[in-house]
Amino acid sequence: MPVTTHIEEHFEASDTVRDVVIGMSDGLTVPFALAAGLSGTVSQTGIVVIAGLAEIAAGSIAMGLGGYLAARTDFDHYRSEREREIRETVELPQKERDEVAEVFRGYGMEEKDIAPVVAAISSDQKRWVDFMMRFELGFEEPNPKRARNSAITIALSYVLGGLVPLAPYMLMSRLFTALSVSVAVTLIALFAFGYVKGKLTGIPPWRGGLQTVVIGGLASAAAFGLAKWIS
Amino acid sequence: MPVTTHIEEHFEASDTVRDVVIGMSDGLTVPFALAAGLSGTVSQTGIVVIAGLAEIAAGSIAMGLGGYLAARTDFDHYRSEREREIRETVELPQKERDEVAEVFRGYGMEEKDIAPVVAAISSDQKRWVDFMMRFELGFEEPNPKRARNSAITIALSYVLGGLVPLAPYMLMSRLFTALSVSVAVTLIALFAFGYVKGKLTGIPPWRGGLQTVVIGGLASAAAFGLAKWIS
Repeated sequence: MPVTTHIEEHFEASDTVRDVVIGMSDGLTVPFALAAGLSGTVSQTGIVVIAGLAEIAAGSIAMGLGGYLAARTDFDHYRSEREREIRETVELPQKERDEVAEVFRGYGMEEKDIAPVVAAISSDQKRWVDFMMRFELGFEEPNPKRARNSAITIALSYVLGGLVPLAPYMLMSRLFTALSVSVAVTLIALFAFGYVKGKLTGIPPWRGGLQTVVIGGLASAAAFGLAKWIS
Repeated sequence: MPVTTHIEEHFEASDTVRDVVIGMSDGLTVPFALAAGLSGTVSQTGIVVIAGLAEIAAGSIAMGLGGYLAARTDFDHYRSEREREIRETVELPQKERDEVAEVFRGYGMEEKDIAPVVAAISSDQKRWVDFMMRFELGFEEPNPKRARNSAITIALSYVLGGLVPLAPYMLMSRLFTALSVSVAVTLIALFAFGYVKGKLTGIPPWRGGLQTVVIGGLASAAAFGLAKWIS
């Protein structure tokens, strides 16, 4: 079925895009904001680099493993719901046939037209369970490789994103210069990231770019203000 | 339709649980790991508290606004796809009817049984479009309030989670004591969080608890090791 294949490809591509977006938007934003926040209270770039790299290590592992477990949980959940549906087609076939009919009643079909549809769908157990999973419960079948791919994609995107704001502090010894360069470089990177993200997810690219700049700006302003205030 | 209501409630509840899980698992993990990492290289609790609070501010804003935009993007995407389907039922009705038929062919139905189904579904434009969105494209209609709720839930969960590992550094002046208490308290909190998360998402609670402890432990060990190594 070309339709299904098209849908699956669409979902896999958007899963990867989603993972890159999850990892990179936080990777660009949180280490950036932390470094800017600390720049208001410390006197050397060294402590900013240490805190920033510690944050990147912690954040990439937490988000990567978090993504791994989220994808695994989705997969386990799908499997256990599917097993329950399979059991129900064996133990309560009439109730399950009524549920198939109920879906079509919701689309305004008449009873005399519903009977052959229900008979056709419930004549093959795999098809029947497929139908219940998708149409009654709204589940998409998850890709079993997704958990590992998701973890790696999110973690790498986080590290790559986080190195952008941190590089100036690693390369420059004057704190104020490093902060200025980091802010400039990261705001450009946030805009470019949001622009491309907008193109991929179908929102206007300029709006996408401005959104990520605003998030990064707000987060780092809050971190800067809070660090100044308590120190 | 009680079936649909049940499904919608299921989705809304799992959306909120998902948001709390997203915010709190990162909130418990990343500030914990950052604070532990910095404890290996600085001599006072003050800098750990500043960095930790800056991280909580940055992380909660970045994740909360990120969640807001992700939910908005889902909603906009759903709406633009829906408008495209509405246009297609007007401009290319025969093609759209063929696509409805194609879905049922995939379930093994015979052509003579498909015709009345297609006629019933395509007799009402709203129903027809609903059908295409759900069965051909696999979209669930998103809740329009979800974006704001999602942002607030994620951000608050992050702040609450982040204050657990940070509290000992705020209350105790000796760094090593604060680190020890923070590790103990946070590992207990991570286990309890993972245990409850397991109950809610249907995975065995003990496994859920151990998983979050391992993630938190790995992230903070990596942050600690990296900070020690570069300082």
